[in-house]
Amino acid sequence: MAVPPSTYPHRLLPLFLGLFQAALLLFFALFVTYDEPSTQAEDTSLVANQVYSTFPFFQDIQVMLVVGLGLLLTFLPRYGFSALTHNFLLLNFSMQWALVLQGLLHHFHHGQIHLDLHKLLISEFAAVTVLISVGAVLGRASPCQLLIMATCEIPIYLASEWVIVICLGVLDVGGTITIHVFSCYFGLGVSKALLRATQQPLHPKEAPTTSSDLMSLVGTLILWVFWPSFVAILCQPGDAQHRAILNTLLAMSASAITTVVASSLLERDGKLSPSHLQNGSLAGGVAIGVVADMAMPPVAALALGSLSAVVCVLGFRFLTPLLGRKLTLHDQCGIHNLHGLPGILGAAASVVAVLVASKDTSGSQPSQLSPALCQAAGLAVAIGASLLAGLLTGAALRLPCLARPPERLCFDDSLYFKIQDQAESPGPDSSAEEGALALKE
Amino acid sequence: MAVPPSTYPHRLLPLFLGLFQAALLLFFALFVTYDEPSTQAEDTSLVANQVYSTFPFFQDIQVMLVVGLGLLLTFLPRYGFSALTHNFLLLNFSMQWALVLQGLLHHFHHGQIHLDLHKLLISEFAAVTVLISVGAVLGRASPCQLLIMATCEIPIYLASEWVIVICLGVLDVGGTITIHVFSCYFGLGVSKALLRATQQPLHPKEAPTTSSDLMSLVGTLILWVFWPSFVAILCQPGDAQHRAILNTLLAMSASAITTVVASSLLERDGKLSPSHLQNGSLAGGVAIGVVADMAMPPVAALALGSLSAVVCVLGFRFLTPLLGRKLTLHDQCGIHNLHGLPGILGAAASVVAVLVASKDTSGSQPSQLSPALCQAAGLAVAIGASLLAGLLTGAALRLPCLARPPERLCFDDSLYFKIQDQAESPGPDSSAEEGALALKE
Amino acid sequence: MAVPPSTYPHRLLPLFLGLFQAALLLFFALFVTYDEPSTQAEDTSLVANQVYSTFPFFQDIQVMLVVGLGLLLTFLPRYGFSALTHNFLLLNFSMQWALVLQGLLHHFHHGQIHLDLHKLLISEFAAVTVLISVGAVLGRASPCQLLIMATCEIPIYLASEWVIVICLGVLDVGGTITIHVFSCYFGLGVSKALLRATQQPLHPKEAPTTSSDLMSLVGTLILWVFWPSFVAILCQPGDAQHRAILNTLLAMSASAITTVVASSLLERDGKLSPSHLQNGSLAGGVAIGVVADMAMPPVAALALGSLSAVVCVLGFRFLTPLLGRKLTLHDQCGIHNLHGLPGILGAAASVVAVLVASKDTSGSQPSQLSPALCQAAGLAVAIGASLLAGLLTGAALRLPCLARPPERLCFDDSLYFKIQDQAESPGPDSSAEEGALALKE
Repeated sequence: MAVPPSTYPHRLLPLFLGLFQAALLLFFALFVTYDEPSTQAEDTSLVANQVYSTFPFFQDIQVMLVVGLGLLLTFLPRYGFSALTHNFLLLNFSMQWALVLQGLLHHFHHGQIHLDLHKLLISEFAAVTVLISVGAVLGRASPCQLLIMATCEIPIYLASEWVIVICLGVLDVGGTITIHVFSCYFGLGVSKALLRATQQPLHPKEAPTTSSDLMSLVGTLILWVFWPSFVAILCQPGDAQHRAILNTLLAMSASAITTVVASSLLERDGKLSPSHLQNGSLAGGVAIGVVADMAMPPVAALALGSLSAVVCVLGFRFLTPLLGRKLTLHDQCGIHNLHGLPGILGAAASVVAVLVASKDTSGSQPSQLSPALCQAAGLAVAIGASLLAGLLTGAALRLPCLARPPERLCFDDSLYFKIQDQAESPGPDSSAEEGALALKE
Repeated sequence: MAVPPSTYPHRLLPLFLGLFQAALLLFFALFVTYDEPSTQAEDTSLVANQVYSTFPFFQDIQVMLVVGLGLLLTFLPRYGFSALTHNFLLLNFSMQWALVLQGLLHHFHHGQIHLDLHKLLISEFAAVTVLISVGAVLGRASPCQLLIMATCEIPIYLASEWVIVICLGVLDVGGTITIHVFSCYFGLGVSKALLRATQQPLHPKEAPTTSSDLMSLVGTLILWVFWPSFVAILCQPGDAQHRAILNTLLAMSASAITTVVASSLLERDGKLSPSHLQNGSLAGGVAIGVVADMAMPPVAALALGSLSAVVCVLGFRFLTPLLGRKLTLHDQCGIHNLHGLPGILGAAASVVAVLVASKDTSGSQPSQLSPALCQAAGLAVAIGASLLAGLLTGAALRLPCLARPPERLCFDDSLYFKIQDQAESPGPDSSAEEGALALKE
Repeated sequence: MAVPPSTYPHRLLPLFLGLFQAALLLFFALFVTYDEPSTQAEDTSLVANQVYSTFPFFQDIQVMLVVGLGLLLTFLPRYGFSALTHNFLLLNFSMQWALVLQGLLHHFHHGQIHLDLHKLLISEFAAVTVLISVGAVLGRASPCQLLIMATCEIPIYLASEWVIVICLGVLDVGGTITIHVFSCYFGLGVSKALLRATQQPLHPKEAPTTSSDLMSLVGTLILWVFWPSFVAILCQPGDAQHRAILNTLLAMSASAITTVVASSLLERDGKLSPSHLQNGSLAGGVAIGVVADMAMPPVAALALGSLSAVVCVLGFRFLTPLLGRKLTLHDQCGIHNLHGLPGILGAAASVVAVLVASKDTSGSQPSQLSPALCQAAGLAVAIGASLLAGLLTGAALRLPCLARPPERLCFDDSLYFKIQDQAESPGPDSSAEEGALALKE
């Protein structure tokens, strides 16, 4: 049952990636350099301290994106290898592409870009948007389409982030608005424009198995554990960072428990749904990002975590089927429930937090409205820009040369990898074994 | 073969958890706050340093408990999803419950509890006791029973820890006596009282498969790697912490090798038993906790690690079957072999270490006995209190409203989750696929 | 189909390991001690800072070796448990053995060896060589043979490292020459001498399945994430360490993308090969080690990463089959492609880097050649010594008492573990279940 070699055009991928990598080498050769080594002992100690205070957080985030998110996406039983590999490939591609664009936009001084760990980190954050967005079309888009999608999304993200953070002055230390909300609606826009008219019953290969659900849950748990590092890495060291860590821990703990409550209440027989657990447990982390370092009582973090888990589970139970029916909107991983709804909730919470904070400090009517309005405006920009750009990108991905995998071969590793076709049944009989040997060779 | 919806009462779980979460929100709203942000640069730098010196250890421990311990419990092939989820749920529930109780007991000043990372950590340590204890009844108790068990265990742990550490002045930096020994005998007490009369042959779903054993071993390895962080996080920074890390590394390394020796010698055909490897490799970490930061030569750590691995493997081979036959005591994960026996060994070692240390420093007869006696008394308190409380808790869990899962449905994910019934055989034939689709919907 | 108990001699393993562990205890009792605790506050703070700056890196490396490398080796579907366990056992054995030898060679002053975290780390690096080398004979050598192999390899590594780093003054902060190249050719030598004449078709159990390939890829990703810690841990704190981290990140990112390009171009139908991804993504990390902290532009790291990925994939596609045919050389994990070729490439890059650097600083002809020549000489020593020693070791492993597993039972967990024979098909029918019960008991 192996897919015949001629079924699918694979030549575009190495061409596109190869050219990109060559261009990157050229760009780095011409423009990118390291800082001159510091000559004074004091500077050396400063650099060392920066490394020790940033690098462990950075590694945590790498684990989240490469291992945690990768595993979370392996819930499709015959698409685990693809999910893991495409996630890994997109992270590297988007990070490099963001490095180039950010270098050109922000850090191009005297013809040189000075590379450091902080710039790599900022580029990694940009890449996160791509990793989230592709969840909407997981299994239905070719890697080449995903790369084009990343190519479009990164500059739009950078522009939108510039408007939101620099122009509007929105406070968003954990990327709730700039990353989660933006990437969610970008992904949904792409999905709508790319997959329209494919309203149809569940694909036979879409149903998770026990073992694929288990792997996916392990991914969730890895993300859950390291999420505080993601939220806190860009905070001011000291109290703000400490508070951001605590708030995130509280929100995620509340999310975990509330997810179980909500999932159990919503199902007729009280059994928990794996997809609720895999996503709802993380909803608190999405929502808390925008307010994590603000001055607010611990109960607010707990409440936000609980509420976002409820919203996430309700989204899976009611909104996703509704959007599927009414708008023929396809959202494979439920990114709207994990990143969209909790992100909007977090943004709303930030409006309240800013209002309260400014009331506490000043009391004068005009000045307290302005920052709260900015938070709301930032949310509007994130949703509007990403939806529009996503729809356009999705339309571009329908170009014939980027041929989407045929429906019959969606959700199947064997389309992209020299891998055994049968997911889990390597029978001990000799014919299966010979088949395996043939594939290996 | 799906379990009919009416088989099992699931309504209690969301009710109990929901009420708890609401009460927690109320409690936090009334009493919990953060420290005022420090206004001086010096204080900010101090807080930042505390975060940098504690947070990486804290993350390591989170990985251990959520991912490592969770995976270790997935050795039951059809109960992996439940094991992982219940472990995760219990960690969050117990941590929040311990936070409340500890706040009330120790940190309630001027009507306020000031939350910080250290208090979260202490609560996490309390939660560990629950995660260990439930190993004794894994697969045979409902999540609701486990939550009630956690509700009882946390206050008893706090009381017992207070007696052992504060009243008796027992030295136990890695929680060998206060956490491991206590939780082991609490779990055995619960198991005895809850499961009495269920002496019977092995359940058909109890036998691990190759892939479930592999996942469980991965959990062991994750625990093994991060164990030094668990032991050293509460040590005095500097030499004591350095020594604790080294002693733990040595003990665990010796455990790993000795487990292979002991397991190989004990089996007739010299083949290793997976459960020996999964547990014996960690026995050294349990035993070393109580003496890790004491002044003792490195050889003592090696010897303690080796000895505890031997004891653990012997326990699996001889003691567990014996206790099963004579006392009809059920110990699903073998917590007595991993936490009980090595914990007692570690406590005995601490008596010797304290004796030797006091002989070195003073030499006067009376004063050298007293701390050693205290260590022994602490062990006695931990065993006695936990056994008694465990038996009472287990008896309470037999209340009819907490209906235990029927024997036929033990060790089965499909009782609690909307998950495919067959563990590992999603055949490529259409009927199985349709079944999967039906389940998904 | 369980292997009869008498098929295979298992008694040697516990005997050998048990004696080793006893000897280690004796050695530690006689010679090993900790530093005296420092009495001054300044020293305490110094020790604390050393712990905080080293321990997170050390833990990262432990995760790499125990979990990452272990999982990478589980690509053989019926040998996953063995691969994980043997890797874990060999790490501990080799680390302890290296600790003894290094203590005797370098740190034996006044009859005492003072143990600290740095010495454990150095021993761990020595153990890495063993873990790499055994990849060449994975599945075809008994654990006892692997332990003898480790016993031989560690002293030879220490001698070779002493010649390369101390005598020749080779710069190799990430162990590219001293660890990767050395261990690769040692392993190939062992494989050649041990397995000669076993040129034959693919073993039926050698073909990876989807799920074993997925686990192996997860191992790759864990290694990929933490590789910068491996390269940077021994760098000078400050700029050099910062640069080493950045260079490694760049090289590994380029490797990941270039692997996809190369693998896709080389296969007729453009499908990616799992083994290319599992190994090529890491090739950049192997190559960059030797130049990571040198003064070179960022583009060099990218180029080196890309080039080593290309070399690695080409090696898998053409060189491994060729060596197999022409030299009947067996390389199960493809260590020549992951460690050998990229290592040589890295060494060549270091020659260029040293040449350029000395030209920049001095300009005088004679002095610029010498360090470059030393780098080349170091490479030659590493290859020559390891090949020769590997061949001798492999010949010694043919001793009849170390009986190699019979061909029919290679790549099979059930030879070494009390584990279910069938990899993935625990059918729900009662006969299979009874079999499982029998095995468990």
